Amino acid sequence: MIKFKSVQDFRLRGGKYFMPGISIDCVIFGFHDNQLKVLLLKIANLNGWGLPAGFVYKDEHIDDSAKRILCERTGLHDIFLQQFYVFGHPNRCDNNITKIAFENAGIQAPKDNWLLQRFLTIGYYALVDFKAVNATPDFFSEDFDWHDIHNLPTLAMDHSEIVQCALLTLRTHLRYQPVGYNLLPDKFTMPELQKLYETILDQELDRRNFQRKMLSYGILRRLKQRREGVAHKAPYLYSFDLRKYHKALEEGFQSAW
Amino acid sequence: MIKFKSVQDFRLRGGKYFMPGISIDCVIFGFHDNQLKVLLLKIANLNGWGLPAGFVYKDEHIDDSAKRILCERTGLHDIFLQQFYVFGHPNRCDNNITKIAFENAGIQAPKDNWLLQRFLTIGYYALVDFKAVNATPDFFSEDFDWHDIHNLPTLAMDHSEIVQCALLTLRTHLRYQPVGYNLLPDKFTMPELQKLYETILDQELDRRNFQRKMLSYGILRRLKQRREGVAHKAPYLYSFDLRKYHKALEEGFQSAW
Repeated sequence: MIKFKSVQDFRLRGGKYFMPGISIDCVIFGFHDNQLKVLLLKIANLNGWGLPAGFVYKDEHIDDSAKRILCERTGLHDIFLQQFYVFGHPNRCDNNITKIAFENAGIQAPKDNWLLQRFLTIGYYALVDFKAVNATPDFFSEDFDWHDIHNLPTLAMDHSEIVQCALLTLRTHLRYQPVGYNLLPDKFTMPELQKLYETILDQELDRRNFQRKMLSYGILRRLKQRREGVAHKAPYLYSFDLRKYHKALEEGFQSAW
Repeated sequence: MIKFKSVQDFRLRGGKYFMPGISIDCVIFGFHDNQLKVLLLKIANLNGWGLPAGFVYKDEHIDDSAKRILCERTGLHDIFLQQFYVFGHPNRCDNNITKIAFENAGIQAPKDNWLLQRFLTIGYYALVDFKAVNATPDFFSEDFDWHDIHNLPTLAMDHSEIVQCALLTLRTHLRYQPVGYNLLPDKFTMPELQKLYETILDQELDRRNFQRKMLSYGILRRLKQRREGVAHKAPYLYSFDLRKYHKALEEGFQSAW
């Protein structure tokens, strides 16, 4: 990995080390306490928020770039990131951001500077427990924060569209991939799992249909122990069968047909 | 659009007009008579098959590039292409193909030639009625042919992986998007629709489950007319409700929950 002396150094010399015209944007959804949030960075020297983003080293697999970028920008390790879409509108890049940054540093931006070219961006997303995350912004960003999905600030460039596309993808993935591991406690009730789905889908689900569907996936183990200390009939506790869970994550649910 | 005088002209001057390091590969699945095939081109001057592929003009939306490339390479118009994945392994490109092509033309490849750099490729796929297609290969390719999905020849670079990924994506999309329009006659029976799904999924499906699921999507209209001239009970005929079909294509089936 190349160490740049400063943001300015990165802007001037980065083109030597990174693939031209390709960036990566990470949409990190956080779930906790029945809330769905998105991790945003406050871009240094600019009055705006954006997604954790970066570039691809010339000899680096793009999946590794995504992991490295997320780690560099936020301190987050070992996050399972999924590629979901490439955003390729010819006018999606706002080169003014780079121009202003050069001007703020008192430098005339070289016309052929790598950052002033057109960029495609590859979107990656992840879903994490946001209370377990201790993000630390790097020198590109002044601050970071989790923002409620229903109340996002104005975002730079096409980042709002990228977040919406990631959310639709996550909702679609719910139909054939498991979610919940790392987001729920080890033992959870069916209503707790349903609440996770309802929060992501932003809609209420039928209790019996939901239970039938979840059980049909074969990724849950019903425990002998029940949830105690509740007023009415004590609800069953479940845990994920991690072997089957990971198999379903790889192959998709087989019960669809 | 730029007209190149020859393949050699394209190889030498293309870097001026196309985005660096980005290509597009099209996986065109053809369905007809209960067979699933893939459209492949025989690459000129090389003893091998590959996907219809090309590059992105510097001011072109990537979706438009995909449509244009498919049209230029095969003569196919108005195909609904869906982006499905970016392939970004650092060693996925075989620059020898370009080097050999230069050598065959008696030219030493310039070391900084745009085609000798690393390329990411964006995969697009479509599903068409292959009997309706009249492909015409251009100067990059010697020939084209439809190949059975179960019996593909050795493909250039990572094109086998790209085809497999497209097939898995198509199978996944079957779970929440309609298929069939343009592939089946205007009026079709439930067994004919089921056969389409079985061919794509490469598995037999339960007749009653399939029918229940298809009807639950709300995209089919049962016609008064029945299929005539069959030995046993005449089966119902169906047609797609195109308004609901296109809505489901945009938004996904809503019946999943």
